[in-house]
Formats: sequence, structure tokens, C-alpha cells
Amino acid sequence: MSTDSSLRIVQYGLGPIGQATARTVLEKSDAMTLVGAIDIDPDKAGRDVADVIGDDVPPAGVAISDDADAVLATQHPDVVLHTTTSFLDGVTDQLVQCARADAHVVSSTEELSFPYERAPEASNRLDRVAQEEGVVIVGTGVNPGYAMDTLPLTATGVCTDVQAVHVERVVNASERREPLQAKVGAGITTEAFEEKKAGGTFGHIGLRESLWMLADGLGWPLDAVEEELQPVHADAPVDTGFRQVQPGEVAGIHHSATGRIDGQPKLTLDLKMYVGADDSYDAVTVEGEPPIDLRFRGGIFGDTATVGMLVNTVPLAAKAQPGLRTMADLPVPRAFATKPVMEAAH
Amino acid sequence: MSTDSSLRIVQYGLGPIGQATARTVLEKSDAMTLVGAIDIDPDKAGRDVADVIGDDVPPAGVAISDDADAVLATQHPDVVLHTTTSFLDGVTDQLVQCARADAHVVSSTEELSFPYERAPEASNRLDRVAQEEGVVIVGTGVNPGYAMDTLPLTATGVCTDVQAVHVERVVNASERREPLQAKVGAGITTEAFEEKKAGGTFGHIGLRESLWMLADGLGWPLDAVEEELQPVHADAPVDTGFRQVQPGEVAGIHHSATGRIDGQPKLTLDLKMYVGADDSYDAVTVEGEPPIDLRFRGGIFGDTATVGMLVNTVPLAAKAQPGLRTMADLPVPRAFATKPVMEAAH
Repeated sequence: MSTDSSLRIVQYGLGPIGQATARTVLEKSDAMTLVGAIDIDPDKAGRDVADVIGDDVPPAGVAISDDADAVLATQHPDVVLHTTTSFLDGVTDQLVQCARADAHVVSSTEELSFPYERAPEASNRLDRVAQEEGVVIVGTGVNPGYAMDTLPLTATGVCTDVQAVHVERVVNASERREPLQAKVGAGITTEAFEEKKAGGTFGHIGLRESLWMLADGLGWPLDAVEEELQPVHADAPVDTGFRQVQPGEVAGIHHSATGRIDGQPKLTLDLKMYVGADDSYDAVTVEGEPPIDLRFRGGIFGDTATVGMLVNTVPLAAKAQPGLRTMADLPVPRAFATKPVMEAAH
Repeated sequence: MSTDSSLRIVQYGLGPIGQATARTVLEKSDAMTLVGAIDIDPDKAGRDVADVIGDDVPPAGVAISDDADAVLATQHPDVVLHTTTSFLDGVTDQLVQCARADAHVVSSTEELSFPYERAPEASNRLDRVAQEEGVVIVGTGVNPGYAMDTLPLTATGVCTDVQAVHVERVVNASERREPLQAKVGAGITTEAFEEKKAGGTFGHIGLRESLWMLADGLGWPLDAVEEELQPVHADAPVDTGFRQVQPGEVAGIHHSATGRIDGQPKLTLDLKMYVGADDSYDAVTVEGEPPIDLRFRGGIFGDTATVGMLVNTVPLAAKAQPGLRTMADLPVPRAFATKPVMEAAH
């Protein structure tokens, strides 16, 4: 671990999210220093990380390497920003590799946001290694990580009793980057939607993790968890600039999860992501004492918010108790190294 | 510290807030056990705590004592719920007394919610004693403690940059208990308002603490903090059931605080509490990336929410790192020992 106040960061994975987090690390140069970058893509290896991120970024003096062990061993990062894939199966070894290099890990892997139910063995292994090395491993992002778990949990913080929590997130995918429009199936047929759905990895990843985190935070013993995925159809033509969608074609997804106790729907997460939505918003309704009716008007803009959560979790993870952690274990999230801080430092 | 899963609680102070927290502890009997109650009021000492709380509460088997040392020494609480006064001057010795008895303290003392600026010496003493004893001391409530500090901080958690944070809280005091209506001056003349204001302890207590906590959480070095307190006048007759207010009389307070950097208003807290308000709401606006527009429709009902925050902080404090802490140091708040948990246990 470095002893100066600037955190040494390695970026592990330079897809769209990793490029955005690396860009933000470079922008917050008073608080963080990008000391390494890892990606297995042969088109990226060897190039300066800034060159991959964008034309507007000055050279960073950090070459992308496909040899993760070498980068971790030579650069001694305080924290690894890990953004490779969504699924635990593919990343557990990578997370262990980072922890063994004595680095905290903040990861965008959706299944890591609350891994205990889906992958108890991997969770035990990650927790054991993290504790042995004295580091924190945590998965975060806007969803899972905030909008449908940390935020509704925080909304219940004022309640003397809670009977049910309902979370609703509507994302107008027209305002989002093209990969998200592709991810929700904008412009495909209903038949193609059903085929993708049958494939098993379509839909939003992490909805169950949010439900589990919320239930765990409240200490609620769910006796059933149900998930449902349906297409939202366009009822008028939509042109997003990236994609054109005709009436009757798929505009996106309606993905929901319900947690039941004694048959009653105590936790409901309802997510609609589709092009041509009138409005984006996030809403949390708590049936409790007092009742809570919370709304983010205009929604939480996910492309930026995912990056915000990852980068803002860096200093919180670096100070937390070692082990495998979730956002429910860390101090309340807050923006890190914003411009008013950096301007005051000069 | 007890080793079973039920937390041993002593209630220190049995005014309106303390009666409400003690009532909630008694209701959550699967998770907490009320083992002692302290109040110096001779009308309360010796009576069963349930007798003071209300006719609907079955006897608790806990007699109220005016001898705090004796209660703490004999009952070995895990956590003291401390609800005596708003000001640090009056309570620092009480907090030390609890910590020396090896008990965590969750306190409603407004000035304790972020004590470092107003009372650095008392803060140092409390932190030292808490660390020596291995306990946590924390001040919380709905405001300060949540609505104008923890919540807006959490709202910035998704932001890659923040330029300013504006918090607005409007409370229709007609819906609140009579002491709050009295506290905001409902029904007094403008002259009486100005006299009370000149006395120095009128207005909302803890607004500066919220501003300081928010600035500290963001790492923002404020170079000026301003506070303003003005009356809100009734423009129509108001009858709250407790008080009648005529047009032109004071309906309540408009209390605001501004934190500046380089002359710019970077943090603004704007609180209106008055009878006859059309609507209650809490709103947080973050000028940042992404921008945030968050609103609690109908507001956060403070009489209940204060009790919720105090009781829900008990298990978080009991697991946090020892020392003087604020809500920004603890894991995100969440409801504790709600009915779905307790029903499942039977």
C-alpha cells in the first residue's frame, strides 16, 4: 500500500465501463493515480491507456498489458477497479489474483454485488482470501449496487416498522449508449426476444442480487423469489439515432423480481428499460411507519452513475474491514474527489 | 456485553423522544431487551417505565431510576439510547459515563451528530474515551442525522462530479405533535419571534451540524458558513387542534444555512417548519454528473422518523469501529427488527 494520500489504481478490463472508470481516475489525479491497465484484447495490449479511452485524453504514460500478474506484481496497486464480466464464474480467479497481490478490489461484476446466495462456495473462498490478505472485495454499480438495493435500504432507515418495499425503475433507453439499447433488444421481434430469453442470459443482470441484498439488510427470511421477463413493445415508431424501432417490435424489457414471505409479496423490484419511454424515473415506496414515497425525477442516469459508484467506492473499500463485503456493509456512498476539492488544492 | 442475540438496552432520558424510543424497544422484544431506564424527573423515578410511556403499554418490569451510575453498573447494557438534551455542553459527561460503563451510545443530542467543528475538545475527549472502552458514540435522528446530511450525501454517491448540493425540507407543523408547534413559534407575534431569536437557542438545532457533515463527507473545505432565521407568517387562519394562528401571526420558522467556497454557495440547506403548510416534502438537488433530483413526496414524518433513526442505529453502532462516529461513518441505515422478521421467528 502506498503511504502518500494518492491511491494507486490498476484498471482491470477496458471495455466501455472500464474505459469510463479509467478516464475518471485520470481526471481525479489529485486523489488517485492510474498505475496500471490490464486487458486481454490484442487490439489494446501495448497501447497507452489514454489512446484507447479517447482522442481527448492526454497520454497517461500507462501501457495496457495482457499480463495481469505482472502488472499487479510490479505496480503494487492499493485498489483494483475490476470491470471484466457480469458473472462470478468468469471472475472469481481474477478477484483472488488481485487480493493475493494485496489490493482491494472494487468490481462491476453484477453477481458479486450480493454473491452469497448464488455462489456460496465462491463467496467463502473470496471472503477467506480477502481476510487473509487484509483487503476488501466488493461489487457495486448503479444497478445492482444502488438504485434497487442500497437506496431502498437507506429509505427504510427512518422507519420504526416496515411491511413491504416496492422499487420501480424506468429507463428511457433512447437516452443511453447503443450497447444498452442492444442489450434490451430494441428493434427485435417478439420471436427473437423469446429466443434470447430462452438462452438464459438475456434481461437485466443482478435483479436477484438486489432483492437478496435488500432482504438480507432488513433481515427478512424470504421463502420464495420469483422473476419475470417480458418484452415492452413499441406503440409508435422510435428512432434513437442508433436504432429504429417500428410499432409492434420490441422496444425493450420489463424485468421484475418478487420476494415473498408467507406467500405475501414483501419486496418487489420492477425494472423497465426501453427506447421511447416518456420519462425515466426511480421510485421507492415503503409500506411502513412512517410510509416513504421517494422519487428521483428524471431517473438516475446509469451510464454515468455506474462509473460514479465504482470510483466513489474506492476510498470506502480502502478503509473498510477486510473481507468480502457488499454496499450494505460500507459507509454511506458519497462523491469522491469532486472539482471543488481539487480546485481548492491548487 | 451480552452474548445472546438480544441487545441489552438502557433508556437514558424519558422525555417525549425517549418515551417513544423506549416504546419501540419494548415492541421489538425479540431483538432488544429494555434492561434499565434513567430520568431525573422526581415524578418519574420509581415508576415502571411502561406506566410513563402510556396506558396501552403492558408493565415492563423496569423501574425508572434517577441514579444513572447505579443503572449502568448493575444492568451492563450493550447500548444506551440517550435522549436528554440537544446541546453538547449538558451531555458530554453523561456520554462519558455511558462509555465508561462499556456501553455503546446512540444519542439524539443534535450537536453530537457532527461535533468536531463546534466542540473540538469535547469531541477529542469523547473519541478517546470511546476508543479506550472499545465502544461507539454516535448522534443521530431525522434532522440532523438523515434528511439534510446522510440522505443528500447518499444522493451524491452515484456522481462522478458534484458542483453544488441543495437540500430543502418543508414540514407542515400542523401534522406534528404540539411541542414542535410550540418550538417553531406557531401563534406568537413577530416581536415575540424576534425576542426568542435574540435569545440564541430558538430555531432548528443542528442545521450547522448537517452542513458540516455534508461538507466533511464530500471533503469540501468551506470558507464561510452563514445561517439565517426568519418567521413564516400565516396568510389565513390555522387551527391545528393544539393552537390557533391568525393571519399575520407567526406560523413557524424559515431557517437556512449556506456553505461557501470562494464565495459561491456550494451547499444550501433550507428548512421551513410551519403550521398550515400546503404540503410537506424533502428534496435534494445535486448539480453534478449525473444531476440528481430526489424528492420524498409527503416528506419524512419526523416524529416517527427520529425514533426510527435512533433505534435502527443501535445494531449498526454495536458493530462499528470503536470511537466517536457520525452517520457518515456507519453502514447505510436500514430498518431493524421489523414485524416480518419477528413474525417469522414465531
